[in-house]
Amino acid sequence: MAKILSGKEVVEALNENLTTRAKALVEKGVTPCLATVRVGERPDDVAYERGATNRCKKIGIEVKHFVLPENASQEELLATIDEVNQDDSIHGCLLFRPLPKQFNDEVVRNALLPKKDVDGITNGSLAGVFAGTDQGYPPCTPAACMEILEHFDVDVTGKKAVVIGRSLVVGRPAALMLTSRNATVTVCHTKTVDMPGICREADVIVVAAGRANVIGKEYFSPGQTVIDVGINIDEDGKFCGDVNFEEAEPIVAAISPVPGGVGTVTTSVLAKHVIKAAERGNK
Amino acid sequence: MAKILSGKEVVEALNENLTTRAKALVEKGVTPCLATVRVGERPDDVAYERGATNRCKKIGIEVKHFVLPENASQEELLATIDEVNQDDSIHGCLLFRPLPKQFNDEVVRNALLPKKDVDGITNGSLAGVFAGTDQGYPPCTPAACMEILEHFDVDVTGKKAVVIGRSLVVGRPAALMLTSRNATVTVCHTKTVDMPGICREADVIVVAAGRANVIGKEYFSPGQTVIDVGINIDEDGKFCGDVNFEEAEPIVAAISPVPGGVGTVTTSVLAKHVIKAAERGNK
Repeated sequence: MAKILSGKEVVEALNENLTTRAKALVEKGVTPCLATVRVGERPDDVAYERGATNRCKKIGIEVKHFVLPENASQEELLATIDEVNQDDSIHGCLLFRPLPKQFNDEVVRNALLPKKDVDGITNGSLAGVFAGTDQGYPPCTPAACMEILEHFDVDVTGKKAVVIGRSLVVGRPAALMLTSRNATVTVCHTKTVDMPGICREADVIVVAAGRANVIGKEYFSPGQTVIDVGINIDEDGKFCGDVNFEEAEPIVAAISPVPGGVGTVTTSVLAKHVIKAAERGNK
Repeated sequence: MAKILSGKEVVEALNENLTTRAKALVEKGVTPCLATVRVGERPDDVAYERGATNRCKKIGIEVKHFVLPENASQEELLATIDEVNQDDSIHGCLLFRPLPKQFNDEVVRNALLPKKDVDGITNGSLAGVFAGTDQGYPPCTPAACMEILEHFDVDVTGKKAVVIGRSLVVGRPAALMLTSRNATVTVCHTKTVDMPGICREADVIVVAAGRANVIGKEYFSPGQTVIDVGINIDEDGKFCGDVNFEEAEPIVAAISPVPGGVGTVTTSVLAKHVIKAAERGNK
């Protein structure tokens, strides 16, 4: 029986800490504030915006919504981002992507000041993750994986960690963040030969394969900690991860569930970044 | 007897190719041009500047030198970089670092336009390496490692690669570049447990440990390709790598020597980036 690395437990601990910090900020006359910038009405964006807004408000973070029509121009979006950059009462910004096709993603995302980039989309934030420095903020999903490991006292120093997936938003930053935490990290992907064999030798596995239930029992060995980043809908219409939970759970020492794992923690990580930005005082 | 991955051979092939491309550019009325920006007279900088200048001139790249006094102000250096940015006849810029302590490294290096950042120092270039895109240019040393592998037809797809070292200038970018080339990459460092065991299982090892002759026979197994990034001076005052060459060479299939390996190739990679920048026409 593996220990279940419940996202809910991480969120409760985080939120308690963040609520205290938000109060301390308000007492100093600073109301921590997140801006959300959305183009159009994609259901995924609207749902995540709602979740992030609820999370932030419970903690004591104000949320300002900027919504542009689906057919907005690049100039209009850049003007909105500039407004966010200039407004000292806003500490962090969540820009929903992918953007509609009329936008130059590279130009738009780098228009945001890295100090307000609480979702890790600017080159400045990427450079911070790359270098393991405190510049900007890491993307919320890999940061949520680290938050779970830290909450459950999984020290990765000198441990073998395997990351399955090399995407820009999860796999690569997760690998760099684990390296900065002194793990010996191997990144596996679709071209990897004998991925199960490599995974069985790991102490910690972060799975961001992007396909439902594909990581089965042949990938696991006793004593391992497994973080499942996947969020998929299975044949029965239920949420499931990239890991075949039924197969993995009897083997490994600890595993994050889906739902109720990494995905649960991301909005709290976003809130943590906003609080940190407010504490830094727009620096 | 290992095959010796001679940097000289890579340089000769590269230079032939680059000379042809430089001529083609000149025929179109574009003289490829590198700017070097140096603060003070550090012997290492002066020596590298001389090597890079000679290499570029042989290929047909013009070199403009900007030299500021050791006690120059940040404003003066930023003005110089701005001059380089504005000058359409300059395609690439090599800024010597580390800078004297009166400078804010982060501000100065990011003042350079990524399209002219032929030595991979800006956040824009780091983001390009991170994402595996063509934005900016990778740092010349890890790019030289890739150049050697490519020249000697070492296809890393699906191969196990180990990078020893996690520095910002070599280890981390080398790992990301190998990942982008479809290798399964493990990054080892000072906190890694049983590094020799991990290395013995690799197909390709890139060594950037930063200490003379420390990677001995226990790290190697038959069939491996070894790229030694280290440049050190041994007890007898001779150049040596991080790999104990005498111990490694009888075991492995191929190894780059020191001197005459990676270090030999870096200035040609710099020249390659300048030619590419000139071909892109300041875009």
